[in-house]
Amino acid sequence: MIDAPIDHVAIVVKDAEAAIALYTQTLGFSLVYREIIVDQGVEAIGLRTGDAVIELLRPLSEDSPVARFRGDADAKLHHTAYRVADIAAELGRLKDAGIRLIDETPRRGAHGNTIAFLHPKSTGGVLIELCQPAASQASSPPPSR
Amino acid sequence: MIDAPIDHVAIVVKDAEAAIALYTQTLGFSLVYREIIVDQGVEAIGLRTGDAVIELLRPLSEDSPVARFRGDADAKLHHTAYRVADIAAELGRLKDAGIRLIDETPRRGAHGNTIAFLHPKSTGGVLIELCQPAASQASSPPPSR
Repeated sequence: MIDAPIDHVAIVVKDAEAAIALYTQTLGFSLVYREIIVDQGVEAIGLRTGDAVIELLRPLSEDSPVARFRGDADAKLHHTAYRVADIAAELGRLKDAGIRLIDETPRRGAHGNTIAFLHPKSTGGVLIELCQPAASQASSPPPSR
Repeated sequence: MIDAPIDHVAIVVKDAEAAIALYTQTLGFSLVYREIIVDQGVEAIGLRTGDAVIELLRPLSEDSPVARFRGDADAKLHHTAYRVADIAAELGRLKDAGIRLIDETPRRGAHGNTIAFLHPKSTGGVLIELCQPAASQASSPPPSR
């Protein structure tokens, strides 16, 4: 995972349209995707800047886990995601190193990515995601650990 | 500010040594700086991954603003920073666009960067920093707005 670039930083927001306006119109980021992710109870909104993305997470209901994470705040930074070329290999290496995994098996995330979360109990309290972009999956079969 | 890359993501941590061990030994990031920033009451610890940095902020005292921000958590994501070529020009443009600034005048940040924070009241609740690296200041005089 050496030199794994930041793939995205996720922010749970209360008012997604206002946040989109801020990042696109005021800051100049590009809106690259909007996707409902049913099993996570969010809409994920990708806003590209440089080689990375700010991913707004809009809870689909006020009792979803990300809405509870945000609490009373208008917005709250949620996780950092690092881009890896072989997510199954990285998960195996991290598990062997004693890192607790939320996702033992990589799963589908936003924007066609294959993702897995590390458990914050193992990462000092901040949620970390590994993220293998769809493009790099074309040359390697879907992970199946 | 179009295509301004993520320069760093800051995380306030309680146990800096454990966090450094996690990011360097387990995740493979490179430790690139450790600096006491007296006026912010923190030690800033830069851990490079790809073209960006995870910057750990270790409060120098438990009553510093960043320690209060962290609260009871072991760690908490604090801000995102975007790299710009001309921070004074960007601040002027954002101010004209109605963005409230914490720093009307750019100031010295960690690692020789010139920085300025936007006010979270203007950015939907998440703290945003603009950051002009030391290297790009050689070709332009220090900002003095």
